[in-house]
Amino acid sequence: MTPLALSRIESEIKESPIRRITALLAEAKQKKEIISFGGGAPSLAPPKEVTDAMISALKTDPFKACSYGSTKGSPSLRDKIAQDMAGRGVELTREQINVTVGATGGIFLALETLINPGDEIILADPTYVGYPGPGLMDRAKIVRVPVRWQDDFQIFPDALNEAVSKKTKAIVLLSPDNPTGRILDRKNVEGIVEIAQDNDFWIISDETYQDIIYEGKHTYVYPLAPDRTLVTCTFSKSASMPGLRLGYMYGPEKTIEAAMKFDQYVSLAPNTLSQIGAEAFYSSKESYLKNTVLPTYRKKMEKMGQCLKKYLPEAGFTKPQAAFYYFVDMSNYTDDDEDFANKLLEEKEVVLIPGKFFGENGKKHERFTFVSETEERIEAGVQKIAEMVE
Amino acid sequence: MTPLALSRIESEIKESPIRRITALLAEAKQKKEIISFGGGAPSLAPPKEVTDAMISALKTDPFKACSYGSTKGSPSLRDKIAQDMAGRGVELTREQINVTVGATGGIFLALETLINPGDEIILADPTYVGYPGPGLMDRAKIVRVPVRWQDDFQIFPDALNEAVSKKTKAIVLLSPDNPTGRILDRKNVEGIVEIAQDNDFWIISDETYQDIIYEGKHTYVYPLAPDRTLVTCTFSKSASMPGLRLGYMYGPEKTIEAAMKFDQYVSLAPNTLSQIGAEAFYSSKESYLKNTVLPTYRKKMEKMGQCLKKYLPEAGFTKPQAAFYYFVDMSNYTDDDEDFANKLLEEKEVVLIPGKFFGENGKKHERFTFVSETEERIEAGVQKIAEMVE
Repeated sequence: MTPLALSRIESEIKESPIRRITALLAEAKQKKEIISFGGGAPSLAPPKEVTDAMISALKTDPFKACSYGSTKGSPSLRDKIAQDMAGRGVELTREQINVTVGATGGIFLALETLINPGDEIILADPTYVGYPGPGLMDRAKIVRVPVRWQDDFQIFPDALNEAVSKKTKAIVLLSPDNPTGRILDRKNVEGIVEIAQDNDFWIISDETYQDIIYEGKHTYVYPLAPDRTLVTCTFSKSASMPGLRLGYMYGPEKTIEAAMKFDQYVSLAPNTLSQIGAEAFYSSKESYLKNTVLPTYRKKMEKMGQCLKKYLPEAGFTKPQAAFYYFVDMSNYTDDDEDFANKLLEEKEVVLIPGKFFGENGKKHERFTFVSETEERIEAGVQKIAEMVE
Repeated sequence: MTPLALSRIESEIKESPIRRITALLAEAKQKKEIISFGGGAPSLAPPKEVTDAMISALKTDPFKACSYGSTKGSPSLRDKIAQDMAGRGVELTREQINVTVGATGGIFLALETLINPGDEIILADPTYVGYPGPGLMDRAKIVRVPVRWQDDFQIFPDALNEAVSKKTKAIVLLSPDNPTGRILDRKNVEGIVEIAQDNDFWIISDETYQDIIYEGKHTYVYPLAPDRTLVTCTFSKSASMPGLRLGYMYGPEKTIEAAMKFDQYVSLAPNTLSQIGAEAFYSSKESYLKNTVLPTYRKKMEKMGQCLKKYLPEAGFTKPQAAFYYFVDMSNYTDDDEDFANKLLEEKEVVLIPGKFFGENGKKHERFTFVSETEERIEAGVQKIAEMVE
């Protein structure tokens, strides 16, 4: 390698296809006619309490609102998080919580903190595209456990057992899941935890969508294995504030301290103003979710399900229990999901995300995001897809 | 290593001593009598234009103000940065700029993007403590070039030549410097650039303090070697908004694209609201720096210099040309700078940062930050130090 060349892993890291599409979309947004089932951003503003708290802080004490805080995050926000989690049956001290740059920051720190060269990390196939970044690619080998819509995308302990080796360092669980909207059944979570204990590996539990649930019940992983579970969460989806880049991670105190130590060199500290907004979120969280977020998204979810059945009768899918997405088996319509999405954007100005971006097993699937568009445009979009496959 | 153990580099990464002290200080702030020459945070609020723009965005369109932006940063902010840099003789396109999580985010990405296992990275000794993080420690060996107050902390090309080897991948330059307040003379920058070209390595130029200059002239490194220079900057010091965690990096387009690709897995995207504030900063930047920032800090700098001369006549130092600090040779008063700082905090409630944190060559020195306290408290603090050494 010539001295001026970039690092070896630079060529191994893929540009996140979803971020690429988001960037393209941002520029294409002038063209209002494009219907986007693409990105996974909330379509709502945060609750007024969040923006009011930030406005008030900026007016009352602009110096303080824009000052450095500590790397772990403000003690008062961490107390609110602990209190909120206690209400869900997850008992934490303030010192077990790091405030992070969204869930992305937490995942990156968790991987950096745990992985050594030669380790193996287990991921579902398909699952979120944001795990194989430098924290992982630089050192570990990824091993995949296939999941299928015919099984409601469940990860079965038997399938996991086949993926485990002596080199297994961690499994990354995402429940509720992106791109599938699946919630892991409690008995499967318990089976996975048992395998982690028997084989002495970590569970990195990404609970980004813990609050966006339409049916079924989310199983909090940490209480089942508090010595070997690192959890990442975000305010992006629950509080509709993705641009404020704030999340948190929790787990064993020693591991959280280690992640904080890394974070001093990665982000230095979380955003002070965003933390003020997040703290205010807890005053209206319950009613905002119950009266605004869930009814709004549920309607869109139902509408898209009806349209898929009506206009794409050969599509294979299961109704999402949570999150923002349908993950649809399109093998009766296409052999190449990326080609399909490209052609769709070009000919019909509708955006889908090709399933292969989420793993080998996602081939011939498309991810349909339902939160970004109105019900009318959801129907119009699915109709346009149907026109293309006719 | 047992499977549940943390990663190998976890034990190699040191908790940043300054962040540790900052955290302690935050808790001790109740005790108002503590005089802090410790942390390096601005003591001013950002200009009203910055906070007004954020308030207005939160009121007018809270959805947009809290939405995801692209990983590289908003095109309009990047255009403002390019325009500002053009006024300083640095010609950049929008695509050569990534908006980052402060300078910290930029430095981390620069190191991740360039370093391979076995590479050597050259740092001044002493210099900023924030470079030996996971981006570096995981892979590269650090080689140090000693600098001394008797030489105004200059990095001389001859000394650098001795540190260069076939494995040299980059030098990290920080000018103006923390902890010394030194600006590199243009002829030394030119000499360093020539060595980088002759030996085919990168220059990572951290220009965090580019706007906080009391005398002398900052040399922008990028125009001297545009094919091999990555620059990191921040709004934290210039706009007094460290808690809003925003900075930027620039360099060759291909390298900036590579850093952005990494950043998709590290921070996902910069904070949208902070970017709105930063964009507004450019409307008042010149007058804010000229009429508020520089006069305020210059007075404190002069005051501290007078007090050091008057109360600590055996201290060795040179007047800082820039930034927030005096880096003072205390060898006539102590053999152990960490002991000294600990004792000082305990007995006199004054905070200094031990010089050894910044490198071997910083031993028997202390870093005195002058921006955080009033002139009266600067005098009182230095008097207390004098009392202790009597």
